[in-house]
Amino acid sequence: MTQSFDLAYTLLADYDSTWSRDGISGERIAQRLGKLSTIGLTAQNGVTRVGFSPLEQRAKELVMEWMKEAGMTVMQDGAGNVVGRIEGQNHDVAAIASGSHVDSVPEGGHFDGPLGVIAALEVVEAWKVQGITPVKPYEVYIFTDEEGTRFDGGMTGSRMITGILDMDNQVTLKDANGLSFEEVLATTGKTLEGFSTATRDKLGIERFIEVHIEQGKKLEKANLPVGIVKGIAGPSWTEIIFEGKAGHAGNTPMDDRQDALTAASELFLYIEKAPTLVNRTSVATVGKILVEPNGSNVIPGKVTLITDIRDIEAHSRDQIVSNVVNKAHEIGKSRNVLVTTSEKMRTPPVPIGEEMTGILNHVFDEMNMDKEYLVSGAGHDAMIFGAQIPVAMIFARSKDGVSHNPAEWTSLNDCTISAHVLKKAIEQCMKL
Amino acid sequence: MTQSFDLAYTLLADYDSTWSRDGISGERIAQRLGKLSTIGLTAQNGVTRVGFSPLEQRAKELVMEWMKEAGMTVMQDGAGNVVGRIEGQNHDVAAIASGSHVDSVPEGGHFDGPLGVIAALEVVEAWKVQGITPVKPYEVYIFTDEEGTRFDGGMTGSRMITGILDMDNQVTLKDANGLSFEEVLATTGKTLEGFSTATRDKLGIERFIEVHIEQGKKLEKANLPVGIVKGIAGPSWTEIIFEGKAGHAGNTPMDDRQDALTAASELFLYIEKAPTLVNRTSVATVGKILVEPNGSNVIPGKVTLITDIRDIEAHSRDQIVSNVVNKAHEIGKSRNVLVTTSEKMRTPPVPIGEEMTGILNHVFDEMNMDKEYLVSGAGHDAMIFGAQIPVAMIFARSKDGVSHNPAEWTSLNDCTISAHVLKKAIEQCMKL
Repeated sequence: MTQSFDLAYTLLADYDSTWSRDGISGERIAQRLGKLSTIGLTAQNGVTRVGFSPLEQRAKELVMEWMKEAGMTVMQDGAGNVVGRIEGQNHDVAAIASGSHVDSVPEGGHFDGPLGVIAALEVVEAWKVQGITPVKPYEVYIFTDEEGTRFDGGMTGSRMITGILDMDNQVTLKDANGLSFEEVLATTGKTLEGFSTATRDKLGIERFIEVHIEQGKKLEKANLPVGIVKGIAGPSWTEIIFEGKAGHAGNTPMDDRQDALTAASELFLYIEKAPTLVNRTSVATVGKILVEPNGSNVIPGKVTLITDIRDIEAHSRDQIVSNVVNKAHEIGKSRNVLVTTSEKMRTPPVPIGEEMTGILNHVFDEMNMDKEYLVSGAGHDAMIFGAQIPVAMIFARSKDGVSHNPAEWTSLNDCTISAHVLKKAIEQCMKL
Repeated sequence: MTQSFDLAYTLLADYDSTWSRDGISGERIAQRLGKLSTIGLTAQNGVTRVGFSPLEQRAKELVMEWMKEAGMTVMQDGAGNVVGRIEGQNHDVAAIASGSHVDSVPEGGHFDGPLGVIAALEVVEAWKVQGITPVKPYEVYIFTDEEGTRFDGGMTGSRMITGILDMDNQVTLKDANGLSFEEVLATTGKTLEGFSTATRDKLGIERFIEVHIEQGKKLEKANLPVGIVKGIAGPSWTEIIFEGKAGHAGNTPMDDRQDALTAASELFLYIEKAPTLVNRTSVATVGKILVEPNGSNVIPGKVTLITDIRDIEAHSRDQIVSNVVNKAHEIGKSRNVLVTTSEKMRTPPVPIGEEMTGILNHVFDEMNMDKEYLVSGAGHDAMIFGAQIPVAMIFARSKDGVSHNPAEWTSLNDCTISAHVLKKAIEQCMKL
């Protein structure tokens, strides 16, 4: 007999049901995460529900049903972004909003994205139970293609809403199957023209708060269910090319080589130490390298690599980038290897403003919870909105820090606590 | 007006014609190298004449014509190896032989291979001029597919003659176009069955001497036209896999990583120093690596690499391999990264025996030339024969050490001197 996968059942097994209060239902959160988990469920009990796939659309439609049942008006824009809205006591003011995404990486987990959407919707469910009509309108967002699996991008929906997606570039992209962006849109019934209409002149949102899993181990180490994000790191990508001289591995003496790979190796080891020389929050990674000609018996003549360097403080991040570039040139000089560097991307970090952090501080105090301040190393849709309006993020504890993996897990207690924090924070925003 | 490429003309431009003596003609060597250069000539004035191509066969047929004109009997075996033979005064004894190959790497040069074939043939031409009939039979070899471009092998023809080519494996190989070994053979009218008949019970050769370009800078640095090879290094290939943990480049703190690439980098830098810790002749290279998942924003979870370690002394070579494997495990332990190693190939080095080195010493003394002893880091067909019979190699100076490149160059003086040395050495062998 095969043990069938039942996310809700497993979530409920160690749930402390006293967290189901103030209109928020852990049981409902579990059932909804469970239902979403079946859309794109894999043999490893993970989920493959990539952006712009019919599965992503099915997941959106399921949530849209729940939104309607909760009394929200629902619209989906040309980029596939979903907005559920309840009117407030005041109609003619900007909304308070929350939300996240329902797409996943291939063989991903069931919490990265869905938790933020379900928690945002749970606020409406709770108000319904409590008979509360908020002062201002409240909107729940499902952003399209946050993960960027298909076209190596990410946060595509929120970037389209805010108008920062480069459409001239976007239309030139092809997915792994060779389909163009336009052809992929067509698979979910969308057009380039319709897609372009998603960009808004004004967000119409006053404040935005996103719940997301931490995807790191800090909350687990601190033994805390949720934490306060104080900034979202901005990545900087630099391409560095080492050009030495390919040569026969047998005929070229060790003292007459210009090996591009050993030169690059010196840099890899420097990059590993570079962040700690500057501060404790930054990270630096080389994840992608191309070695040419990449033959077992040929000295590498050329190595092309991308450095991914991030911090919540732009000046620290830029200091590390500059240190790494200088080090690359220094290595090149000492090894007689040509070094060229070019910046491929530099996204500004998004600090969470004191007002928004203050709102969460207040909620944590009210709930008598210890405060842990976190940095988000990954990008999130909230970061995109953060360039235009005040945003905040609440992180929920990730078991073993695992994410983008079927083993991704956040206990139902932690999920439900994150919904309580979100509800109280949204309620604070309603008063401002 | 396009300057047309004329190898013979360029070779003759700085030729000292006093080297055309004792029946050897530098002019003929230049004309023959020039004619071969046109078969597969590239836009960069290099040559692309890969093993098992119709171009390789055309080059062989051109040389076969010259062999016949020189009075040799010519045969081509099922693997495409060509043997030209003149009978000696004694018919019933094993032959003295020389030769090399006419295939090239893609965009290779005009001397790697052809010089050894033309020099071997020049010995016969010279004897014809001098009216000499050698004491023993003399054979000139053109080996098939020395470079191994098509199927990542090499010395295919000589390995087939000596019976060490693993045919069970060979038939499973595919070239870059997906053609099987059998399908590729068919393009030059050969069959697997015919190919198999190339293996001989007995070589029928007493001694073998190969002329080849050095493909290194030692003779140039020593300002000498030719040198004596004292050994052919045997390569050892070891696959080493580092398995760490892939993770998000933004969310994984620097002190919580198991980065397979930085672990591998430590090894790359050790491998670069490893030979000099043991001796001055060995070399160690990592030319081929595979990084997974190889995404710009993902910490490398797995790195697979091949180490190519060579020396003319097996025990030194094996000492370095063992040091590298130990270092890999040490790095794995200190970084909490799983390390697995497996030997992929271990070819015995071929030392050139004292008797054969003695023959060349004698010739150099007779010609009043300084002796430079060289190690061949690359494999050669002579190495394959060397497992069964005494062999020697004569290296001719390579300009700037360049090879496998259109810029590969050996002056006509050096080419012609190598033919003189070969002729005198072959004549010594006739007396033994």
